[in-house]
Amino acid sequence: GCMASSEDTSGMCDLLTAGHRDAVLVTGTAGVGTKLKVAADVEKYDTLGTDLVALCVNDVVSHGAEPIFFTDYYATGKQRVAQTVAIVKGMGEGCIQAGCSLFPGEKAELPGIFPRGEFDMAGFAVGAADRSTVLPKKDAMQEGDVLIGLASSGIHANGFSLVRRVIASQGLSYNAPAPFDASRSLGDVFLTPTRIYVKAVMPLCNGGMLKGAAHIAAGGLLESVAKILPVNLMARIDTTAWELPAVFRWLLEVGRIEPRELARTFNCGVGMVLVVAQGDETAVMQELSNHGEEPFVIGQLAVNDASRKSSSEMSQSMTKPTRSRVKLDNIEASWLKTTRFTSLTADDF
Amino acid sequence: GCMASSEDTSGMCDLLTAGHRDAVLVTGTAGVGTKLKVAADVEKYDTLGTDLVALCVNDVVSHGAEPIFFTDYYATGKQRVAQTVAIVKGMGEGCIQAGCSLFPGEKAELPGIFPRGEFDMAGFAVGAADRSTVLPKKDAMQEGDVLIGLASSGIHANGFSLVRRVIASQGLSYNAPAPFDASRSLGDVFLTPTRIYVKAVMPLCNGGMLKGAAHIAAGGLLESVAKILPVNLMARIDTTAWELPAVFRWLLEVGRIEPRELARTFNCGVGMVLVVAQGDETAVMQELSNHGEEPFVIGQLAVNDASRKSSSEMSQSMTKPTRSRVKLDNIEASWLKTTRFTSLTADDF
Repeated sequence: GCMASSEDTSGMCDLLTAGHRDAVLVTGTAGVGTKLKVAADVEKYDTLGTDLVALCVNDVVSHGAEPIFFTDYYATGKQRVAQTVAIVKGMGEGCIQAGCSLFPGEKAELPGIFPRGEFDMAGFAVGAADRSTVLPKKDAMQEGDVLIGLASSGIHANGFSLVRRVIASQGLSYNAPAPFDASRSLGDVFLTPTRIYVKAVMPLCNGGMLKGAAHIAAGGLLESVAKILPVNLMARIDTTAWELPAVFRWLLEVGRIEPRELARTFNCGVGMVLVVAQGDETAVMQELSNHGEEPFVIGQLAVNDASRKSSSEMSQSMTKPTRSRVKLDNIEASWLKTTRFTSLTADDF
Repeated sequence: GCMASSEDTSGMCDLLTAGHRDAVLVTGTAGVGTKLKVAADVEKYDTLGTDLVALCVNDVVSHGAEPIFFTDYYATGKQRVAQTVAIVKGMGEGCIQAGCSLFPGEKAELPGIFPRGEFDMAGFAVGAADRSTVLPKKDAMQEGDVLIGLASSGIHANGFSLVRRVIASQGLSYNAPAPFDASRSLGDVFLTPTRIYVKAVMPLCNGGMLKGAAHIAAGGLLESVAKILPVNLMARIDTTAWELPAVFRWLLEVGRIEPRELARTFNCGVGMVLVVAQGDETAVMQELSNHGEEPFVIGQLAVNDASRKSSSEMSQSMTKPTRSRVKLDNIEASWLKTTRFTSLTADDF
């Protein structure tokens, strides 16, 4: 039901033939941030287009809506054909993965604004949901609801200012082998395109199996989960439930980043978190596995009653009850357990 | 029916309560181009926000769709609060004029990409149309259909690279009085916000009074009108039908721009062109005047048969029949008539 105009930067989409009669529209807008600079350093641009689509459509699906179309804004000082082609190819790949239409958007040359070679881009996706499938359903959430994490494909597209600072402080080149994975260059690791969760998550939305879905993007695991929760509940996430991927472990140790700061900046290996009713987790995990996802139960919802907690509990679980509604449990036994890259210990944090 | 999220860069819109049951979605994407640089030179940013909305919603309405929401992407090296507030204020003003919701979009700080003080922004609007109101209706257009122009408020947001080149070549400051209007500074003239035609044009769309609407933006009057026409028809525009505003006359003469180049770059005083059936023009013009617009009949559709034209006719009307389907008639009697600013004559062009 969707069609890009061949004559201008507009597109049209027919909601009825797209299967929505009484639709709520949901929009997601994003930029890839300073991941742009890493791509420019290694002159590899195709994955950026996929990242841009991913940021937008994962936002849309986290609201229970099916992405219908994606369009972009791409501005340079002077357009370089190979770069543009690579980016558009990546956007096409992302739209295929998301099952949405690609409307070619605005391509601007702004020589007075961008220095030669610099560029920026923004993405914009629109999705539609039936009224009953809109997420999060904060009123339906309750103590004991299960949190299911979906594996990320890497750093995705958030936290790159910090990444670049660590790389610079270590005097590393993006073309060098990754210290934590000699089979790949740092550039390849960092530019891995963001995983797109649309096709795995939509059937669960449509089946009414989800109470909420958090797209782990700006604000990292902590803030992204916090914002889908009602004020009376908190998330308790057991960090032993999954392996912190090597790239994050390396950033934690070599960058001397505090675990909570890591979790406020990066996805930490979890690209999306679903909230499901206790008892539904097995069926949901099976459905996700059928779509090629790697799901794991990472915790549950608990009553958010700061007054009932002792101060030792609070420091142990690194919660600031007034500032966050997400507790990371067992950090010492997981993220701080091994020190593969340096001799730092938990005491250093 | 629309609601921005307080928690992220998403927004939701309920099509049913917005009055659309069987909707076709239309999107418009735009940037304001190098008008940014003029705004930066005089440190006046509020009108840019309105321009950004205008570019998007005028695109949407030109497809016969009612803008539902607008959202933005705004990227800087380092965010300056006063600048951001001014831009958002201008976007709010634009959305009020367009009668659409403003969804706060992405605000990115990208110090590695933008030099200090530089910024860029992109806008996205989504509209909905009933299936029957989608424009242009190329199949319905025929010889004799009337072209109605709506006055622009100035340069709007296209052609600023050329404007800046002329200003630089003349050694002028944007703070100086306009050579063609001593009561205003050049900056004020150039930064006049783009006129928003939504509320005037939508009733005509909904009433089935329009066969097409061209938003005069990138490509100027010539290209913007050409792209809404079927291949068998051309537009004959009588340039004596309205007064070329002083700012364009000045650019034409002082910038030594050819008339056809002027019309391919700028709106030339006409911000939107409507195609209506012969006999409907009086009612349409009355409706537009009721909404505070300044409409004028600027020409009509004619058969596009290049082979029937003599070469003298062709040169007289400055048509390149293979490249454009818009003829500008009577240029000598209008745009080249007076030479108020220099001693140029028609022979110079």
